[in-house]
Amino acid sequence: MGAETYRSAGVDVAACDAWLGRLGEQLPAIGGFGGLFPLGPHIREMREPCLVASADGVGTKLLVAQAAGDLSTIGIDCVAMVVNDLVCCGARPLFFLDYLAVERFSETMADAVLGGIQRGCAEAGCELIGGETAELPGLLPTDRFDICGFGVGAVDRAKAIDGSSIAAGDAIIGLPSSGLHSNGFSLARRVLPAEAMNLEMARALLEPTRIYVQPVLAMLDEVKVKGIAHITGGGLPGNLRRVLPQGVDARLDPAAWDRHAIFDMIARSGEIEPGEMFRTFNMGIGLCLVVAAEHAEPTLRALHAQGARAIGEIAAGSGQVHIHQIHNLGVDL
Amino acid sequence: MGAETYRSAGVDVAACDAWLGRLGEQLPAIGGFGGLFPLGPHIREMREPCLVASADGVGTKLLVAQAAGDLSTIGIDCVAMVVNDLVCCGARPLFFLDYLAVERFSETMADAVLGGIQRGCAEAGCELIGGETAELPGLLPTDRFDICGFGVGAVDRAKAIDGSSIAAGDAIIGLPSSGLHSNGFSLARRVLPAEAMNLEMARALLEPTRIYVQPVLAMLDEVKVKGIAHITGGGLPGNLRRVLPQGVDARLDPAAWDRHAIFDMIARSGEIEPGEMFRTFNMGIGLCLVVAAEHAEPTLRALHAQGARAIGEIAAGSGQVHIHQIHNLGVDL
Repeated sequence: MGAETYRSAGVDVAACDAWLGRLGEQLPAIGGFGGLFPLGPHIREMREPCLVASADGVGTKLLVAQAAGDLSTIGIDCVAMVVNDLVCCGARPLFFLDYLAVERFSETMADAVLGGIQRGCAEAGCELIGGETAELPGLLPTDRFDICGFGVGAVDRAKAIDGSSIAAGDAIIGLPSSGLHSNGFSLARRVLPAEAMNLEMARALLEPTRIYVQPVLAMLDEVKVKGIAHITGGGLPGNLRRVLPQGVDARLDPAAWDRHAIFDMIARSGEIEPGEMFRTFNMGIGLCLVVAAEHAEPTLRALHAQGARAIGEIAAGSGQVHIHQIHNLGVDL
Repeated sequence: MGAETYRSAGVDVAACDAWLGRLGEQLPAIGGFGGLFPLGPHIREMREPCLVASADGVGTKLLVAQAAGDLSTIGIDCVAMVVNDLVCCGARPLFFLDYLAVERFSETMADAVLGGIQRGCAEAGCELIGGETAELPGLLPTDRFDICGFGVGAVDRAKAIDGSSIAAGDAIIGLPSSGLHSNGFSLARRVLPAEAMNLEMARALLEPTRIYVQPVLAMLDEVKVKGIAHITGGGLPGNLRRVLPQGVDARLDPAAWDRHAIFDMIARSGEIEPGEMFRTFNMGIGLCLVVAAEHAEPTLRALHAQGARAIGEIAAGSGQVHIHQIHNLGVDL
């Protein structure tokens, strides 16, 4: 064994640095020890400005993207998972940072992932101001990588949305998902038969997570929204429950919206119970908004282009989410 | 094969949710879709408040921690890697979020990691306001996990430190590291012989990354600092170079500070060239401060308890970092 180097140990700092150098030319906020973000006057003039922060990844959707050889949209998913959380508090996303953990740095891979992140940030109206690329030989399997994202938004405390005013009689408006978004892939991958994994199936699975930020922020200026839930891990019951105050239940009618065929395919392939499907997947709804009954119509109108539907209501209860008429069965989740 | 569930696919949402529920009782900011952080008056009264953000992980130090069965301090490393970056801009850390990617959720592991994160946040004076725990079966190898952290700080633009005023004649003050900190582990693991991996060696390797935030922020009130570099991947040359403006070089005298024995052990074991050692490891210096020559003494006094040393100077040049007298060899890096 001759003289050892960091490169011989699997970490090619030079390749990664060269890539970051080129990136720094495109993105001037990147390069210092921390990304700098000046607080604009719209934030400084808020009565009680609050920052809202979220961290999230895209789970094993990465494995499907790698198997399909298409990493162009996984960065959109990463941004979407984070910024949709921010808008649940009524916050406007300000900036985003990514963390990319790779077994071995590949410029092609990093470019593809970053391209998606940049598209996602543009759609959400936030700035990519930094990130970290870590080479982890011996920790990640050969050619594997993981990504996660961090985002920060701002909201005036008086306008922060937290579900506390939700009451019996309120309406639940759903915005359709584009597919699985970024949750449930470990189960989907386990049950979908290998022979079904053609290009069409890969496309359906990889459809990027929808970013709800701009249309929702626009309608918040017009309509008072009491609670917003981003439907991620835990599905409709797990996430809607997070915005319910004490003393109420949410009742959803799944006949009120369409589900992509992919959900039925997964359920059939794995003989998965409806309750488990609803706890694991978004089942066609990516974001829920809770509004007073008289605000349901204006909300539906404002979000018409996003395919908004009235999908349920709030009733007296104990913090439960009920989903009725799933394959003609009442299921309490 | 019977009915499939998310759990049978390797994702135990219930175990993770129960842990998060208990966590939410300890940490009230956690639980909503985004962590909320009100901007205090000290930020709102700044002339031009800027946020500074950083993301970082701890690399393959995780593998050493797992092999040694001690995950109690790896969370300190994760916080340190992030908050030391923030203080390089002169920013006071405000809040922190973590991302924990696991092959399979383990409460013991998550508790140990989070304990370190909480200790790190306490030492840095920032609040843990959120995070994400992702189960990635099939992506991470059995029982492996990765962590990264994300932190946000604030600084008034007029007080932001960016190295731009650094000039020939300035002094470079070094603060000692506690050991390898969180960089170079892939090389260290490769070259250190298995028989050397006893408890004492594991302790030396796992010594937590020093958090420089509080002492450095305190001295910034007293002394004008022109540039600060956190010595991470890329070592002294790679990181000091990041704060140098055009037209100057940094000249370091490595005889001016002590190095932990672990660095010599690694160099000997792998027959690693001095230049490669300095590009890969911090070599005993965790943070460098550049100050005007007349401010060197006050800086050394203010950071005496941290073991501050004058380790070099700024000279006319072209953005290079020169390290002299390494084993009696002049090495330009």
